[in-house]
Amino acid sequence: MVQNDAFRVLDRLECLRLLAKVPVGRVVYTLRALPAVLPVNFALDSDDAVLLCTSAGSDLVRAIDGVVVAFEGDEFDPATRSGWSVVVTGRADVVTDPAEHERLSRSGPASWMPARNEVFVRIAPEMVTGRELGTR
Amino acid sequence: MVQNDAFRVLDRLECLRLLAKVPVGRVVYTLRALPAVLPVNFALDSDDAVLLCTSAGSDLVRAIDGVVVAFEGDEFDPATRSGWSVVVTGRADVVTDPAEHERLSRSGPASWMPARNEVFVRIAPEMVTGRELGTR
Repeated sequence: MVQNDAFRVLDRLECLRLLAKVPVGRVVYTLRALPAVLPVNFALDSDDAVLLCTSAGSDLVRAIDGVVVAFEGDEFDPATRSGWSVVVTGRADVVTDPAEHERLSRSGPASWMPARNEVFVRIAPEMVTGRELGTR
Repeated sequence: MVQNDAFRVLDRLECLRLLAKVPVGRVVYTLRALPAVLPVNFALDSDDAVLLCTSAGSDLVRAIDGVVVAFEGDEFDPATRSGWSVVVTGRADVVTDPAEHERLSRSGPASWMPARNEVFVRIAPEMVTGRELGTR
């Protein structure tokens, strides 16, 4: 990350509190050796894992299952040039346990797009970093 | 990219028109073998290249100069679950030509953070993809 006096580094708790405020974040991964990024709606689980809901056969699932990805959320106000961004980096895994899938079907995020053979993906919050620019 | 009936693929012109509407996008790259993402303000050049302004000695510049990166912009409305996202993929290069640097100092983006030894980075619009979810 760029280090600069103009922004403040956020601690893990601040990061998670801010990330919980926004409905959409961006999965950052690699696709055919190129950097790739896809916005998705999400929820945070009780253990701070990022939860996505998508189609079992999607390119996204094929690309990220079992792989370390980054997940980014942010909010900026161009008028005041202020805002924050948070990145959760960790391994992404499709939830395969039936009981866990059942739990998430009730309480997890619903895909904004109709999902075929809906699956949940969990991104482990192994590294949580964030920064704030200007004042909120 | 995930393909799904619920969204519409945008053509290059639509992508660039939408991207020009937002002040902040996200550079997607690799840092110490991990996926990395950093929001930055930007401008589009007349040849559709993405222009960033940052500090010459920043980690970002070290990580992306001469490397293929992705640059993402989006806008979503959670109330209607609609929005769009656009990704420009191409090689990032620090602008080293003095005349070009001079031109961008006058007309290019100004960094939202005080930049030390300001440099401009140009991301070539080699691949421009986008999609729209729901209706605008």
